[in-house]
Amino acid sequence: MLEVSRNTVVNAYERLFAEGFIETRIGDGTYVAQLHALSKPMQPGESFGIEPQLHLGFRLPAASLFNQHRIHEGAPKAFRIGMPAIDLFPFDDWARLQSRFWRREPVDHMGYGHPAGEPQLRELIAQYLRHARGLKCDPSQIVITLGAQQAIMICSALLLHPEDEVVIENPCYWAAAGAFSCLGVKMNGIAVDNDGLQTSQLQRIPKARLAYVSPSCQYPTGATLSMARRLELLKWAEEKKSWIIEDDYDGEYRYSGTPLTPLAAIDQSNRVLYIGSFSKVMYPGLRLGYLVAPKQLVDQFLLMRTMSTRQPPMNDQMAMALFLSEGHFQKHSRRMRRAALLRRDALLQAWNQHLSHIGEMQQVSSGLHVTIRLANFVTEQRLIAQALSEGIEITPLSASWLPGSSEAQTGRYGLVLGFACVKVPDILRAVETLKYAWAQR
Amino acid sequence: MLEVSRNTVVNAYERLFAEGFIETRIGDGTYVAQLHALSKPMQPGESFGIEPQLHLGFRLPAASLFNQHRIHEGAPKAFRIGMPAIDLFPFDDWARLQSRFWRREPVDHMGYGHPAGEPQLRELIAQYLRHARGLKCDPSQIVITLGAQQAIMICSALLLHPEDEVVIENPCYWAAAGAFSCLGVKMNGIAVDNDGLQTSQLQRIPKARLAYVSPSCQYPTGATLSMARRLELLKWAEEKKSWIIEDDYDGEYRYSGTPLTPLAAIDQSNRVLYIGSFSKVMYPGLRLGYLVAPKQLVDQFLLMRTMSTRQPPMNDQMAMALFLSEGHFQKHSRRMRRAALLRRDALLQAWNQHLSHIGEMQQVSSGLHVTIRLANFVTEQRLIAQALSEGIEITPLSASWLPGSSEAQTGRYGLVLGFACVKVPDILRAVETLKYAWAQR
Repeated sequence: MLEVSRNTVVNAYERLFAEGFIETRIGDGTYVAQLHALSKPMQPGESFGIEPQLHLGFRLPAASLFNQHRIHEGAPKAFRIGMPAIDLFPFDDWARLQSRFWRREPVDHMGYGHPAGEPQLRELIAQYLRHARGLKCDPSQIVITLGAQQAIMICSALLLHPEDEVVIENPCYWAAAGAFSCLGVKMNGIAVDNDGLQTSQLQRIPKARLAYVSPSCQYPTGATLSMARRLELLKWAEEKKSWIIEDDYDGEYRYSGTPLTPLAAIDQSNRVLYIGSFSKVMYPGLRLGYLVAPKQLVDQFLLMRTMSTRQPPMNDQMAMALFLSEGHFQKHSRRMRRAALLRRDALLQAWNQHLSHIGEMQQVSSGLHVTIRLANFVTEQRLIAQALSEGIEITPLSASWLPGSSEAQTGRYGLVLGFACVKVPDILRAVETLKYAWAQR
Repeated sequence: MLEVSRNTVVNAYERLFAEGFIETRIGDGTYVAQLHALSKPMQPGESFGIEPQLHLGFRLPAASLFNQHRIHEGAPKAFRIGMPAIDLFPFDDWARLQSRFWRREPVDHMGYGHPAGEPQLRELIAQYLRHARGLKCDPSQIVITLGAQQAIMICSALLLHPEDEVVIENPCYWAAAGAFSCLGVKMNGIAVDNDGLQTSQLQRIPKARLAYVSPSCQYPTGATLSMARRLELLKWAEEKKSWIIEDDYDGEYRYSGTPLTPLAAIDQSNRVLYIGSFSKVMYPGLRLGYLVAPKQLVDQFLLMRTMSTRQPPMNDQMAMALFLSEGHFQKHSRRMRRAALLRRDALLQAWNQHLSHIGEMQQVSSGLHVTIRLANFVTEQRLIAQALSEGIEITPLSASWLPGSSEAQTGRYGLVLGFACVKVPDILRAVETLKYAWAQR
């Protein structure tokens, strides 16, 4: 009757039945099911019942969030922050490792693995930390994370309750403040000077249960936490039974002497959660970092990690393990440091030759960025806008302050420049461009 | 005097100075810095100030968590759950895609990218959902996640407050219950029958702000949510202004007719958060899933995602995008479904021939696992222990119930068997083994 094949009809009935649009009554026949009418599309402006608390994350100045996202995408440009010399990435070695690994048909690694990450990689990271950082830890303490950010979030979510208070460097790393603000905890900013966090001010904040610090290279000031203050901070954590998150996101980039001993290496009372990352030696999009957890917290971390992402992706972990075990990493990380040093010097020299009137550039002894202080907000925003209109990315220092910071009204404005991610000629060209862009008002 | 070279001494001083162990006074000399004494190692048994609330995750029977972790590691074995036929993974294609991608030196993708994930992949997923699921969505609604688990956690963390209540299928997927319990929300279990979640019981829970369901193949019962109940559930969410998390973790595995229309495709009022995953067609260790967020929630999701992991790892996303765009995925997913069907039938036939006295095995029309009900806990645990001693992994149904479930005292015990991850001969051998293992008491 319908001039379609029997199969078509059978399939149609099967689908209708599966979807529940028809019902069959044994020995009787097939009937259209009684269904609720579909609800009408909703009206624009109708409320969705989202609570204001959802917006906790927005406690952080939306500007800084937005700004961070905008300037980080696409190919590297002068003077992007947080980007290493990825033009030196060993693409061929990496491609070879990946395809070799896959041609071995690694079925043992393709299922649900250990929530802390691939055992081989955790072994290698423990070795690396022992040799490169003097940080002795057991592989069982290492949790592979999605970059430093997941480590910060897991630590905070596990150790803090919404009513808790934390200590954070001010100015601070925007994404750490973002993680805390998502959890709704109270952030207490403590000023940073040339010796890092002013530990003497810890007494101001008796209720603090956790302190977030970046001792080897504070973001964005670049200050190194002095040994005296490292010990003061540890003493504080021990006495208050508080926790310390030590974010060592770019500790490999030290240009004079060897990297400093991490807090975690001198901590005697298991209060320090050490966070490292491969983002700055490999590439940020790798999203591979690690957390060294105090032994007494490991189980809780694994539970939290399991429930938030189960385990880290396997492929990059295995490639990273091969990259480490075959000695590529050590070689590459030396190469990256040399390149960053070269590019730092090129910027320093060109800047002070052509742009010293904006502000004298100081030599930084670690990290991938340098900061120029400015007198006021208007100047900061104008210079950054003019630079951006020429395709040059500069990050405003003003975006790094906690909302409502009273201290450091002076020196809260400035330019943060990443010097590592483009070649020397591009750095010189960018300085040249800025010279003209900033000449016209 | 020390019989070491001048450089050695200079380096030693430099290091001591950098570490802050010595201080230099201009025009005066170098002095040992005054430092706090290092604190002594802490005593065993000393408290670390961990609150009981840290153990929220343990509200879920620790047994089921532990059990899940143990049996999921290493090479596939009969009858592991949640594992597809990874022996059919196209290793060479995958290896070729990876190395081709890397040899192109993809510097544009190696930095900090979009927090929602790689735009190309999100485009392709939107297309896939339109064709394979009849789910029309804009790529801007798609957030790439670390498997379904991160999607579940982000949704819950964003939409729920600790005092909130949720509805969850009972028996349930342990890791979803785990995510909710980590957040401390009250879980209300609703029983599942052959038509899926008993939506009539939703009225029992007036305060529920969210319902977590797996409509196309409920875990662990394998039930499909009928169309009548899909509409009831949507009506409930619309009236109560509640949310629905639709976990479509293995919707590709439908053995009769085409996959059912997801809730998200018939939702008229933007209350459904649709979760999909590549774990079951590719491999679980890939940790690549996606969330289709209602338009009005996208911004909050991106903020939450940024603060919890910034962005998903780039490498696997790009490989997956190539795998999809070059048509490998569609081919592979058909192949995986055929294999799973073949293995399902082999198990069904062998089981009912040799082990029907344990319990008759029913034919499942979707998913990767089948459930055999048992009379009591003792039998369940004995059979599973005997199987495990022969190296055969079987998951206890009893581990899938919410703590303190009153309903369904009958049929709460049983065996959950995954049939997809080993070849037919291995399935037959395993059934053979069980036959003898279970014969002796």
